[in-house]
Amino acid sequence: MKLTARLLDIADRGVLLNTADARNLGVLHGDRVQVLNETSGISIAAYVDITTTLVPQGTIGIYRVCNERLCVIDGVPLEVREASRPQSLEYITKKMNGTRLSKEETYQIIRDVVSDDLSPAELTAYITASYINSLDMDEVEHLTRAMVDTGERLNFHTHPIVDKHSIGGVPGNKISLIVVPIIAASGLKIPKTSSRAITGAGGTADLMEILAPVAFSATEVQRMTLKVGGTIVWGGATNIAPADDKIIVQEYPFKIDARGQMLASVMAKKLAIGADLVVIDIPVGPNTKVANLQEGRKLAREFIEIGDRLKIRVECAVTYGGSPVGRAIGPNLEVVEALKALEGNEEPSSLIQKSLAIAGIALEMSGKAAAGTGFNVASEILRSGKALEKLRQIIEIQGGDPKVTSSDIVPGKHEFVVKAPTTGYVTDFNNKSLITIARLAGAPHNAGAGVLLHAKKGNKVQAGDPIFTIYAERKWQLDKAIEEGRRLMPVVVEGMLIDRVPGDYKWQ
Amino acid sequence: MKLTARLLDIADRGVLLNTADARNLGVLHGDRVQVLNETSGISIAAYVDITTTLVPQGTIGIYRVCNERLCVIDGVPLEVREASRPQSLEYITKKMNGTRLSKEETYQIIRDVVSDDLSPAELTAYITASYINSLDMDEVEHLTRAMVDTGERLNFHTHPIVDKHSIGGVPGNKISLIVVPIIAASGLKIPKTSSRAITGAGGTADLMEILAPVAFSATEVQRMTLKVGGTIVWGGATNIAPADDKIIVQEYPFKIDARGQMLASVMAKKLAIGADLVVIDIPVGPNTKVANLQEGRKLAREFIEIGDRLKIRVECAVTYGGSPVGRAIGPNLEVVEALKALEGNEEPSSLIQKSLAIAGIALEMSGKAAAGTGFNVASEILRSGKALEKLRQIIEIQGGDPKVTSSDIVPGKHEFVVKAPTTGYVTDFNNKSLITIARLAGAPHNAGAGVLLHAKKGNKVQAGDPIFTIYAERKWQLDKAIEEGRRLMPVVVEGMLIDRVPGDYKWQ
Repeated sequence: MKLTARLLDIADRGVLLNTADARNLGVLHGDRVQVLNETSGISIAAYVDITTTLVPQGTIGIYRVCNERLCVIDGVPLEVREASRPQSLEYITKKMNGTRLSKEETYQIIRDVVSDDLSPAELTAYITASYINSLDMDEVEHLTRAMVDTGERLNFHTHPIVDKHSIGGVPGNKISLIVVPIIAASGLKIPKTSSRAITGAGGTADLMEILAPVAFSATEVQRMTLKVGGTIVWGGATNIAPADDKIIVQEYPFKIDARGQMLASVMAKKLAIGADLVVIDIPVGPNTKVANLQEGRKLAREFIEIGDRLKIRVECAVTYGGSPVGRAIGPNLEVVEALKALEGNEEPSSLIQKSLAIAGIALEMSGKAAAGTGFNVASEILRSGKALEKLRQIIEIQGGDPKVTSSDIVPGKHEFVVKAPTTGYVTDFNNKSLITIARLAGAPHNAGAGVLLHAKKGNKVQAGDPIFTIYAERKWQLDKAIEEGRRLMPVVVEGMLIDRVPGDYKWQ
Repeated sequence: MKLTARLLDIADRGVLLNTADARNLGVLHGDRVQVLNETSGISIAAYVDITTTLVPQGTIGIYRVCNERLCVIDGVPLEVREASRPQSLEYITKKMNGTRLSKEETYQIIRDVVSDDLSPAELTAYITASYINSLDMDEVEHLTRAMVDTGERLNFHTHPIVDKHSIGGVPGNKISLIVVPIIAASGLKIPKTSSRAITGAGGTADLMEILAPVAFSATEVQRMTLKVGGTIVWGGATNIAPADDKIIVQEYPFKIDARGQMLASVMAKKLAIGADLVVIDIPVGPNTKVANLQEGRKLAREFIEIGDRLKIRVECAVTYGGSPVGRAIGPNLEVVEALKALEGNEEPSSLIQKSLAIAGIALEMSGKAAAGTGFNVASEILRSGKALEKLRQIIEIQGGDPKVTSSDIVPGKHEFVVKAPTTGYVTDFNNKSLITIARLAGAPHNAGAGVLLHAKKGNKVQAGDPIFTIYAERKWQLDKAIEEGRRLMPVVVEGMLIDRVPGDYKWQ
């Protein structure tokens, strides 16, 4: 059928047909049509939206992502035919029906995700089915490899390449700003890609962006890593494992964290950057992603197994996630706290101890420190000022000001101190509520917004003692955060490492 | 935040934000914003799409469905704030996690479906989770009632109101064109709403549309039923159980037929039209929706149980679905076949026997026929010409030509006879392939397209004997259908009723 093109400014892969044309073609909402530009010979398949009014009969609305491939202008005649639907839909139905997917089936789904050949709703069905029926280890491996193979990779000729990852869920976890410079300062290469906050008050990419640009291509990440030993960039700007970003977007409304997809998501990024050795930080505790030590160890074993299959040596640090890491939550506050630790401040010990423990594991895995000495070697690198120096090199190569100090960065100008309503011992902290307060105050977008904790574990506080301060850049946001903040009682516990689960895969 | 409205011609409920504004508001793709038109005071919540290029910073794209409520013009300033997401998302996550939903939770989901407060992807997650984790009978009842309560209803003061439904899956099932007039001619009221073909070659609404208009409001359906005893209209034009139509659209890509949703879908329509007595036709056989008699009986018991809960007396007819009903597949061919049967033709017996069996059950349930005599009473109504007369009244009241006869309706002008490739007994027919051929030939949109079967069960055929004819309105469609058609061998089996499962709920 000949239809006239009408370009529509929709960031989508579909086309829009008039009901009458759709009936003539015999297609329904969600079916596919093949659209051929006879002049150029370019032909694409696209999923069909249907309208009774938005485009008239005889016209086909072409969404923007379609036109990136089709390259037509308004008014051009196009040949439109019913097309078969992507085979990956069949595989999604299989997964709905509880069948294990083969390597080829998983690859086909991920290829169709990356090329936007599946609609958001279809991708959601895959995610939901994988979540409910879960993925076995073979499926996780296939998903990981499919994500890697449909994106860009780094190719280092030097080894080992080191990486670290925290599965998240605990507020104030700014340790990458300390761990990455320590590892790079030891002479190892660590091309760290991070995410922005999705549900948190600040991801590592949000934090680093206060110090330097974070959007780089994979090639630039490789070049910078070779030059200064490490980077702290935003993974979303690279084309590494692009399917993963699309999956995370669709997962977000349901606040689910599907185990198999999470394993694949983390490990795909590690495989794609060429990591040989990876330390994974698994915070456990109520109000984190992993409720208790047993679950943490189970997840650790799964990471190690996937690592073995990918020939990446993985070691997991099951860490205390019952309260925030350090005292600061929110971009500026966290960056100040991390810079102070690098500048020689010995507080807060929860932040420093955790950073040294994680860095120490990587140093031991790589042979930079003898077994049992990693923590001390890391500590020495921190105390010597070499880690601060390394972070400045990383800031500089990413285009930031290497002379920045902790006093250059200030919290939001509006603040409010939450005080103890009664006298007693501080006994509990709810991570999720703390994050909610920081977000209500404007974090992560308003870099000055956040929460600074004053009370610590075991403190006896008198009624009226300050418990925490809320910072905001705007008064109305402060007011919203205060309203929420009045309900909390904090506790801070020092000494973060609960358990260490070594992998037995030998990386060399 | 103040943003300038820009109307976008998208049939969707969302708004489109520039990335920078989205970050300022602290919202991600899939979050909700509250949009306030300060002049009119009208405020709506809408889900957020995000773009880096399609709308500039400072501008908010307003999709069409949003603007039906917001009523703004291009350039108007709007106040936009982060809004909480619909609570039904939490319930969808619960269902993903295997939790049974309460009545209130199901109602909230369905209210949000009807008001388009859930995105297509979110609705798909609900459907997928309900499919995999399945719905128990309480949940099915709640879903049914929620669908009914969020749409329009018919309110008859006369009883009993009768209805019939076929769960589909068997081609050529034009029995409603015969069953409805027989029941109405007996003096009963049957306000039948039907669907268009989704995956089939012609739904009852597609067939009836050849004889008369089928798009009516609920009120008009009630008025016409009171006047002539019955209607055959398209359910999609009424506002009866509108959530169901939205669910079916999202289900379509996966070709799944979730048991709980199917029960709710069928029974919601029956409850909404005020049915007291319902006969449900469950075709069983390979290549239908229900594979065997055991499964058919199980489904029958489920329909009866839901009927009991809704105070509707349900009886199920488990019917032979191993081959098409009658010989004709495709709108015009099927209408001709049904009209001929009403005009006195005694062939094909599979169509007539099935129609009389189904009508007979309804007549017995209502007391219009004594137990065991329903088939004969129905047969008498058919033979007397009263059913034909009644169909003509229905055609007339719906605005069609009551003087229509079977010879007025002709198949497509292009035809091709598929012949037996070899000598032997006809032994099998694949329903799905037959539907595929009819659809490739242009059905249901091209009313003249379809397949007419010549061979019957047990026939010995000689190589070269005609097996079936494919009709099409366009040559290229005929060619496509022929290509597929060459691969098939047909069988027709007479005597359709395999089993009858009575409900014990007493409707009066």
